[in-house]
Amino acid sequence: MLVEKKIPFRYFFRQVRADVARVLVFAIGFELLELYFGKSMPIIPGQLATILGSAISLILAFKINQSYDRWWEARKVWGAIVNDSRSFALQVKAFLLDDLLGAAAAQAAVKQLVHRQIAWCYSLSQALRGEDATANLASLLTAEELAYIRQHNNKPLALLALHANHLKALRQQQALESYEHVQLDSTLVRLCDSMGKAERINSTVFPMTYRLLVHMFIYLFLVALSLSLVETVGLVEVPILLAFATIFFLLEKTATYLQDPFRNKPTDTPMTAISRTIEINLKQLLDEKEIPQPVTAESFYLM
Amino acid sequence: MLVEKKIPFRYFFRQVRADVARVLVFAIGFELLELYFGKSMPIIPGQLATILGSAISLILAFKINQSYDRWWEARKVWGAIVNDSRSFALQVKAFLLDDLLGAAAAQAAVKQLVHRQIAWCYSLSQALRGEDATANLASLLTAEELAYIRQHNNKPLALLALHANHLKALRQQQALESYEHVQLDSTLVRLCDSMGKAERINSTVFPMTYRLLVHMFIYLFLVALSLSLVETVGLVEVPILLAFATIFFLLEKTATYLQDPFRNKPTDTPMTAISRTIEINLKQLLDEKEIPQPVTAESFYLM
Amino acid sequence: MLVEKKIPFRYFFRQVRADVARVLVFAIGFELLELYFGKSMPIIPGQLATILGSAISLILAFKINQSYDRWWEARKVWGAIVNDSRSFALQVKAFLLDDLLGAAAAQAAVKQLVHRQIAWCYSLSQALRGEDATANLASLLTAEELAYIRQHNNKPLALLALHANHLKALRQQQALESYEHVQLDSTLVRLCDSMGKAERINSTVFPMTYRLLVHMFIYLFLVALSLSLVETVGLVEVPILLAFATIFFLLEKTATYLQDPFRNKPTDTPMTAISRTIEINLKQLLDEKEIPQPVTAESFYLM
Amino acid sequence: MLVEKKIPFRYFFRQVRADVARVLVFAIGFELLELYFGKSMPIIPGQLATILGSAISLILAFKINQSYDRWWEARKVWGAIVNDSRSFALQVKAFLLDDLLGAAAAQAAVKQLVHRQIAWCYSLSQALRGEDATANLASLLTAEELAYIRQHNNKPLALLALHANHLKALRQQQALESYEHVQLDSTLVRLCDSMGKAERINSTVFPMTYRLLVHMFIYLFLVALSLSLVETVGLVEVPILLAFATIFFLLEKTATYLQDPFRNKPTDTPMTAISRTIEINLKQLLDEKEIPQPVTAESFYLM
Amino acid sequence: MLVEKKIPFRYFFRQVRADVARVLVFAIGFELLELYFGKSMPIIPGQLATILGSAISLILAFKINQSYDRWWEARKVWGAIVNDSRSFALQVKAFLLDDLLGAAAAQAAVKQLVHRQIAWCYSLSQALRGEDATANLASLLTAEELAYIRQHNNKPLALLALHANHLKALRQQQALESYEHVQLDSTLVRLCDSMGKAERINSTVFPMTYRLLVHMFIYLFLVALSLSLVETVGLVEVPILLAFATIFFLLEKTATYLQDPFRNKPTDTPMTAISRTIEINLKQLLDEKEIPQPVTAESFYLM
Repeated sequence: MLVEKKIPFRYFFRQVRADVARVLVFAIGFELLELYFGKSMPIIPGQLATILGSAISLILAFKINQSYDRWWEARKVWGAIVNDSRSFALQVKAFLLDDLLGAAAAQAAVKQLVHRQIAWCYSLSQALRGEDATANLASLLTAEELAYIRQHNNKPLALLALHANHLKALRQQQALESYEHVQLDSTLVRLCDSMGKAERINSTVFPMTYRLLVHMFIYLFLVALSLSLVETVGLVEVPILLAFATIFFLLEKTATYLQDPFRNKPTDTPMTAISRTIEINLKQLLDEKEIPQPVTAESFYLM
Repeated sequence: MLVEKKIPFRYFFRQVRADVARVLVFAIGFELLELYFGKSMPIIPGQLATILGSAISLILAFKINQSYDRWWEARKVWGAIVNDSRSFALQVKAFLLDDLLGAAAAQAAVKQLVHRQIAWCYSLSQALRGEDATANLASLLTAEELAYIRQHNNKPLALLALHANHLKALRQQQALESYEHVQLDSTLVRLCDSMGKAERINSTVFPMTYRLLVHMFIYLFLVALSLSLVETVGLVEVPILLAFATIFFLLEKTATYLQDPFRNKPTDTPMTAISRTIEINLKQLLDEKEIPQPVTAESFYLM
Repeated sequence: MLVEKKIPFRYFFRQVRADVARVLVFAIGFELLELYFGKSMPIIPGQLATILGSAISLILAFKINQSYDRWWEARKVWGAIVNDSRSFALQVKAFLLDDLLGAAAAQAAVKQLVHRQIAWCYSLSQALRGEDATANLASLLTAEELAYIRQHNNKPLALLALHANHLKALRQQQALESYEHVQLDSTLVRLCDSMGKAERINSTVFPMTYRLLVHMFIYLFLVALSLSLVETVGLVEVPILLAFATIFFLLEKTATYLQDPFRNKPTDTPMTAISRTIEINLKQLLDEKEIPQPVTAESFYLM
Repeated sequence: MLVEKKIPFRYFFRQVRADVARVLVFAIGFELLELYFGKSMPIIPGQLATILGSAISLILAFKINQSYDRWWEARKVWGAIVNDSRSFALQVKAFLLDDLLGAAAAQAAVKQLVHRQIAWCYSLSQALRGEDATANLASLLTAEELAYIRQHNNKPLALLALHANHLKALRQQQALESYEHVQLDSTLVRLCDSMGKAERINSTVFPMTYRLLVHMFIYLFLVALSLSLVETVGLVEVPILLAFATIFFLLEKTATYLQDPFRNKPTDTPMTAISRTIEINLKQLLDEKEIPQPVTAESFYLM
Repeated sequence: MLVEKKIPFRYFFRQVRADVARVLVFAIGFELLELYFGKSMPIIPGQLATILGSAISLILAFKINQSYDRWWEARKVWGAIVNDSRSFALQVKAFLLDDLLGAAAAQAAVKQLVHRQIAWCYSLSQALRGEDATANLASLLTAEELAYIRQHNNKPLALLALHANHLKALRQQQALESYEHVQLDSTLVRLCDSMGKAERINSTVFPMTYRLLVHMFIYLFLVALSLSLVETVGLVEVPILLAFATIFFLLEKTATYLQDPFRNKPTDTPMTAISRTIEINLKQLLDEKEIPQPVTAESFYLM
């Protein structure tokens, strides 16, 4: 997530330099054509650029809106993960019956469940980013747990399976009543939903033809604008065209980055920072003493 | 689903060649009329094309937006199917009491339920695409189950009925408590909802008059544009018109394909790939050894 | 619902003939005024038509969008009715305890509940269309049930009351456990919600002032267009104006029909066909032999 | 709610006369300035009015959309109140155990709960309109109940508290089982939600700066239009400006009325009519004989 | 929240003075350039300003819409907090069994839970505004409770943990049945969700690149407008440009303020007033005598 700090100019520039360079080439090209073959070139009415300009603005605005919705949906999914992780910890503490199990065993079970929940958040964020989903979990999971999830393609799902098995075992030891077991299961269902929603956003490519047509459309608009300006304003056409190209391509890129919020880029959903917040909250709910520090933005973005 | 690979040009071209050919005919037609009867032809002001251009851009943008929402809703439905299939498997494993039933019988029941759930996903995807909804299910269902669903019009619904009967039998054998039975029933209700939602999207025709009017509107715009250009720019009118026609009709086609996401086309929701993912996840949750490979895109799309 | 068949031209034409005729009158009127008093008539700049054209396009596009949302919401409500009717049948079959009641009595109770559910769908669709909500239900309900619902203003609500009474009686006979009773009640709550949602859409008039202003606005635009064209293009103004009027009024009509999806018109939600699908599904779940045929579109629409 | 009847012209006129009068003043003022100082007045290009016209159309269209969403949300809230009131009555009838309590006492309890629910609807509608929330409830509530709610600031909330106390007492008398008690409590939670949602819409002022800027923007547009027309079309500027002003200010007013759907105005959500429908439905569910008549629109609106 | 009172002019002015000053500088700058180098300056066609004007209007309108959605979502979250706080109080009163605990102890427990709920609302509102989340809670919490929450980073979450512990203790004393315990837990889950949603809105920066591009785009439009006006209207360009700049930058600022509804600004969600309403409602439900006054707007806004 980009934060409210100064964003370096080259961050912007890098995104559109290829497209802007292409525009520069044909802007100068048309200028030269006008210079040498001006007489025999057809006159392109400015009206065409106006029609195309209003059409592409519209379609771009809608595309930004759809991309924004996708980005916001991704953020909502991780918000739900925060909420359900906290609720899970509160419920585990409230529902586990310590009299039958003994206070120490009950506390150990609570700790194991809550630590596994923290591990699940880190694992999911790493899986979504295409990183190793079992990295950095050694302090939160037992060796058996780690070995178990390594056998699965989908590591976070394997962690949920461990949760379900653990709760079943507690239920069989009578440390959990039937209703409370089912209420905890409902929380697992919601966590499973959030995981699936994040995977859906990550694996669903924004409609390719739509994406390509918008790109083509911007070029068509810029060509029409260039051709109509070349005859009326002369050389000033080149800087004007560069300004238009920069802003339209930057808007398009902004849309594209918002579409894919889990790609290990500065515009990502800050899943590492969110997972750390969950870790801090949950460890404090366990009255632990060693609490890690929140992740802060070192540069102009937060991961 | 189209993937992030190079889409062949002819894929685009095939979609709009009929419409673009029609536009070519009248673009040249007006050119000839201008040539032979230029004097007596009325002058069509460019303003008309501007008004129509901004109107059709707007209506097209809204239509793309509505189509996009339909496409995204279809994807969400299949996302929910993934989530609820996983939750179903986790719940079946967690809720079935193995002490009364015996470990082997309990494990067999879990396996049968989970395999039937995988079969339901494949069956639903085939039914939505108008294919045989009982194909390729022999390895996941028993012969009786296959015979039972063959009697029904709606095969996936018949599979849910088998689920419900099976759970009832387990409940009567005391292998399932009342509260857990109802929690599993809630998962069946959600699966039934997802199935009905996908069928709704598939069977509801996008408002026909709206669809036809947009098509007519694009033609009206192109005619007005042609008539106003024919007098000002001469022969250059023809390529300009072809460019406008191509982009507007391609945008319209994109909208149309997004509207119907279960039609066995490259732009479909990738239901086969999703069902395979579910199969892999669920079989790993059962600790099975023979896990199939994920479906990958061979060409520029994934089914 | 209009289906993907050829829609007869007169279906379109009938909708807008009154408005188009009015436009024809003033288009010719202005022509005559120009002919006889041309010198003293003020010149109306084309810019006014451009401003009004872009404004009315925008407002019309938003109105179509809101109408579309209403139409889609209506369709979703009937989708939920399909889903909950199926779930209701599955739940009744799964939850009714046949040991205490005896197999035959249990089966009879299941059949009566499921048939009443089918009757509820037909009754609701007829009530929404302003038809007799008790028609054609004799084969699905007992004579006492029919007599009971005849006393109520709201027939489908009376059927839900019969459902609730029936389930209470079964609960008192111990044929239903407490928790399963409550789960079935949750399904009744959802059916009651869907019924209320459909009634809400049906009884809530789309904001009248908004509707009237859009209509006035289209006329204002066409008058401005006519006045600006009459001086520049002469007689060609008339066909141009007719083309603009036809397409804008047809778009407006499309919006209006989408707004009211339960008015017994070709653009209706196909409630009869949906109820029939539910009847087929539910009767097959009861293993009945006499299954009716699906409703198919005889003409260009499906009711 | 305005109904599908002829709306008197003066209803529209009253809403915008102040703004239109102001426009008339400056339209004539600019005319006079042009007449006396025409030579030295700067020429305002028509392009400014075009830019402002397309900007204000857009912002107005979005504002209408947001206002429409608010209006529709308000209508949905009252739809949910209809649904949950009906469900509440069905549940109370189905869940109350008459064997322990005695048939007469059970029936009396059902009647008291259902009548109180009807009273709640009327009380809420009156509270939202700023009227006395305890008026006209004497036939539905006991004297003690009326006295109790008079002590509270929020009368409908006090009625829900009476519901909760009543259900608790029934539970303590064993006339209600634990699950059924909780299921009824879930219905109370939904009623409490609907009440809070209506209060939220009522108490949340639509963003004031946004509202004021749109108003200012319309004036700016009309001034620019007036200045550009005054030089090109002369006196015809005045009627043109009045037509533009009327339609833009009426659209703005329509948005404003849709924003606040509980202000005791003709454009209100018809809460009295809806509450009456609930009264009719619920009394018929109790098999009462004295059923009131539905509220019908006497004039062009329904309250 | 800004209320329906006169908003002081300087409140508006302060927001945009820096941007408007910058526009003034270049508007005069271009005027001087025209004056001294008029001959050699290129002519910028007005068409560019038209294209940019319609593009920026569109993008600004969408941005306002997205910001409005965020603002409305924030208001909905606090509406849900009102509803769930009331439901929590009603449920605590209805579910606590006073026979086992003794009437006085039960009443004390109810009071402690409800007062803690009031404290939670104030604490959350202060935490969201970056203020001390433990301020002003001494009259609602015990000293131990205050000491406990001081150890946590997230004070409102610590209060929810106290709720959960308290309910667990009551359950262990048999003052709460299992099913009612789970129903109260569901209310805690919803409160935890609302808290997380508010934190999500507060901590998620609106996409920075999007925000910056819109700002740049307004400048680009104003520069193009200035350059095209400077040659056609002369000095009148300056006031025109100031009017355009004021209204576009004010619209942009309005969007920005709506995006961040918890920043301790006049445009904030009125969390203090809402928390006070909850305090009044809940204390009246406890039949307390000392009821605080509602918070009213002293100036043009309500906090």
